[in-house]
Amino acid sequence: MNAYEELRYMSDQGVATLVFNRPERLNAWTPTLERELRDALRAAQADESVRCIVLTGAGRAFCAGMDMEVLQRAPASPAATQEASDDDSQQRYGYFWDIDKPLIAAINGPASGVGLCLALFCDLRYVVADAKLSFPYARRGLAAEHGIAWLLPRLVGPMACADLLFTGRTFLGAEADQLGLARALPADGFLEHVQAQARDIAQLSSPRSVRVMKRQLLEARYQTLGQATRAADAAVAACRGTEDFKEGVAHFLEKRAPRFTGR
Amino acid sequence: MNAYEELRYMSDQGVATLVFNRPERLNAWTPTLERELRDALRAAQADESVRCIVLTGAGRAFCAGMDMEVLQRAPASPAATQEASDDDSQQRYGYFWDIDKPLIAAINGPASGVGLCLALFCDLRYVVADAKLSFPYARRGLAAEHGIAWLLPRLVGPMACADLLFTGRTFLGAEADQLGLARALPADGFLEHVQAQARDIAQLSSPRSVRVMKRQLLEARYQTLGQATRAADAAVAACRGTEDFKEGVAHFLEKRAPRFTGR
Amino acid sequence: MNAYEELRYMSDQGVATLVFNRPERLNAWTPTLERELRDALRAAQADESVRCIVLTGAGRAFCAGMDMEVLQRAPASPAATQEASDDDSQQRYGYFWDIDKPLIAAINGPASGVGLCLALFCDLRYVVADAKLSFPYARRGLAAEHGIAWLLPRLVGPMACADLLFTGRTFLGAEADQLGLARALPADGFLEHVQAQARDIAQLSSPRSVRVMKRQLLEARYQTLGQATRAADAAVAACRGTEDFKEGVAHFLEKRAPRFTGR
Repeated sequence: MNAYEELRYMSDQGVATLVFNRPERLNAWTPTLERELRDALRAAQADESVRCIVLTGAGRAFCAGMDMEVLQRAPASPAATQEASDDDSQQRYGYFWDIDKPLIAAINGPASGVGLCLALFCDLRYVVADAKLSFPYARRGLAAEHGIAWLLPRLVGPMACADLLFTGRTFLGAEADQLGLARALPADGFLEHVQAQARDIAQLSSPRSVRVMKRQLLEARYQTLGQATRAADAAVAACRGTEDFKEGVAHFLEKRAPRFTGR
Repeated sequence: MNAYEELRYMSDQGVATLVFNRPERLNAWTPTLERELRDALRAAQADESVRCIVLTGAGRAFCAGMDMEVLQRAPASPAATQEASDDDSQQRYGYFWDIDKPLIAAINGPASGVGLCLALFCDLRYVVADAKLSFPYARRGLAAEHGIAWLLPRLVGPMACADLLFTGRTFLGAEADQLGLARALPADGFLEHVQAQARDIAQLSSPRSVRVMKRQLLEARYQTLGQATRAADAAVAACRGTEDFKEGVAHFLEKRAPRFTGR
Repeated sequence: MNAYEELRYMSDQGVATLVFNRPERLNAWTPTLERELRDALRAAQADESVRCIVLTGAGRAFCAGMDMEVLQRAPASPAATQEASDDDSQQRYGYFWDIDKPLIAAINGPASGVGLCLALFCDLRYVVADAKLSFPYARRGLAAEHGIAWLLPRLVGPMACADLLFTGRTFLGAEADQLGLARALPADGFLEHVQAQARDIAQLSSPRSVRVMKRQLLEARYQTLGQATRAADAAVAACRGTEDFKEGVAHFLEKRAPRFTGR
C-alpha cells in the first residue's frame, strides 16, 4: 500500500498486517522503522476497510530491540517532537492509544527491549512458544523504558514484573503464556493463526462496539467503578438506533453471519 | 421465605441461596427478576442468621442475559430510579456493594451478558467446567455494560479482558478458571459443592471479621497502600474486646469449632 | 555480622540472608524479632557489598505469625513510634519500601499472619511446595493487617484475595504458585536454590538499574501511564554516562560477565 523502507504493510479481509522488515538485523529498531510504524498505524487507522491490525516481524525475529549502533551512541532518548505533557497519548509511542482498532502483536521470534515494549502497547499478544524474550535493562545498566514500569505489573502482576525487570533474564514464549503476558502458539502456521484470530474480530465483531469498548477500557484505568458504570450506561444508550446494533440483533435472530458497517 | 415470581430464596445453615427461576427461558433477565433479586439480597443482608449468599440458576442455565424481547425493544438502559451519582453503590446494581456478607456466584450453566456481569459483582465465582460463557456485546453492536470495563480487567488482566470483549466469543468454564475469572468444578454435585464452601465461611469465619475485611477490600481499591495500612491498624485495634475476637482466640486454644456471634 | 538475639544475618557473594531464628517457636513474631529485622534490613541496605536480600526462617517454619502469648494480650497494634502519616513508608513495616535492593522471601515452611504479610512486602517470593500458608484473620475475629487488603488483591486478583481472607483457610505453597503469590520450589535444596537466584541478580544485574527500576515500580503504582512514561524518559536519560551503562554495553559486546559498580 504505502512504500516503506523498513516496514511492509499488507491488508487483506479487514486485517492490516504491519511487518518490521529488517530481517538481516533481526528487525532491530531504528529511527526510520519508528517513523514508518507511526505512519503505517495512522494509515491503518484511517482506512475504513481495516478493522484489526497485526504487528509482526519479517524473518526469524520479532524485534531485537534498539539497534546496538544506535544504543552505543546514546540511550534511547525522547523523540525531538515529543511534547512536555503527561498525557498518555502524547508520549513517544503514545499514539498507539489513539488507534481505536484492536492491535495484535504476533511475536514470531525473539523480542527484546523496545521491541517487547511495543508489544505491551498492543491489546493482544500471541507468541511462538520457543521465542526468546527479554527486558534486558538490568544487564545494560539502563532503566525500564517507555512506561512499561506501569504496563507490565498491570499485565503480569507485580511479582513477575519484578522478576523479569530485576533479572533482565531471557524467558520463552511458553513462560510468557503462563504469566499472562502473551498467548503461546505453535511456530507452524503462526502468523496465519494470528491473522485468522484478527479476521474473526474483523468479520464477527461490530467495529463500532470494539471502538467504543476500547475507549471504555482506556478510560476505566483512571475511573472509579461508579464513573465507569455511568459512562457504560451512556455508551449503551448511545447504541440505540445505530446500524451496528440493529444488525447485531438482526443477524442473531436470523442466524446468519453479521454485516456490520461500523456505524 | 419471601414469595417471589421469578426467584427462589432458600436459607439453610447460615447460607442463603437465591435461585433465578425462569428455567424455561434459561433464566433470561427481566425487570421482575431484577427487582426480586434486589429485594432478596436486601432480605439476606438483614437476616442475622445468614452469613453467606449464593446466587445460582434453576434448570440448566445460570442466566442467558437480557431477555431477547426486552433487548429488542431497547438496549438495557439505566433504571428509572437511578440517581445521577458517580458513587459506586448508587449504580444500577451498585447495591451489591452494600451487601456486607460474602456473595458467591454458582454458575451452573450458560451465562451471558448481564447474567455474567452480575457474577462479576460477586466476591467469588464457581463455574461448571463446560458451561458456556460470553460477553457478546461486540456481536450485538453494544458496549460493555454495568462497569465491567472496570471490573473485568482487574479480575483477568487487560489482555484477557480485551480478548473476551473485542471478540464477544463464547468460552467455557474451564477457560474462565485458567483466566482467574471463576473456579471450575465438576457438574456432578456442583451446587452442593458450592454451598459446602459457603457453609465453611458461615461456620468457621467470624461474620464480623468478614464484614470488616470486605469493607477493607472495597476501600483499598481507591486508597494508597499507606492509607489502607492506617485503616487496617484502626480496624485491628477495633477488634479488641469484641466477642468474635475473644472467641477466635478461645476456640483456637481449646481446639474446638468456633461459635461466632458476629459481634 | 551483627549480633542479634532472634535473627541470624549472613552475607555471601552479594547476597544478605536474614534468618528468623526462633525455630523452637516456629519463628513466631515478637517485638524483639521485629526490631532486629528492621535493624538488619537497614544494615543490608547500607552495606555496598550487598546487592540482594533474602528473608527466611530457621528450622522447619518461615514464621508462624504473631506469638500467641503476644496476641492474647492484645491484637497487634501500631508500634508506639509510628507517625500519624498516610505515607507508605511511614507505616509499621513501611521501611521495607525504603530498601532499594531486591527483597526475596524464601518461605521454607509454614507462614501465617504477620509472617505471610511480611513476605508480601518483598519483591519476590519463593515457597516450598508443601508449606502451609494462611491469613487466618477470619478465624481469629481479626481484620486484614498491615495493608494486605491493598497488596494481596494486586498480587493475586480480587477473587483469590477474597477467598483467602474470607475463609482464613490453610493453603499450600503449590496453590500459592498457581495464584501467582509465590513461586513453588522443591523442599530439597530450597534455600540454596533461592540464594542462587539472588546471586544471579547480584552478579548479572546492574545495582544502579535495579535501584532505579524498583523506584519506578513503586512510583508507577500511583502514576498515570503518561506520568510513568515521562519519568522513564528521564530515568533512561540519566543512565547516560554512568559506569553501569558503559559496563552494560561493554560486557555485552565483549561477550563476558559484567562487573557492575552500582554507579
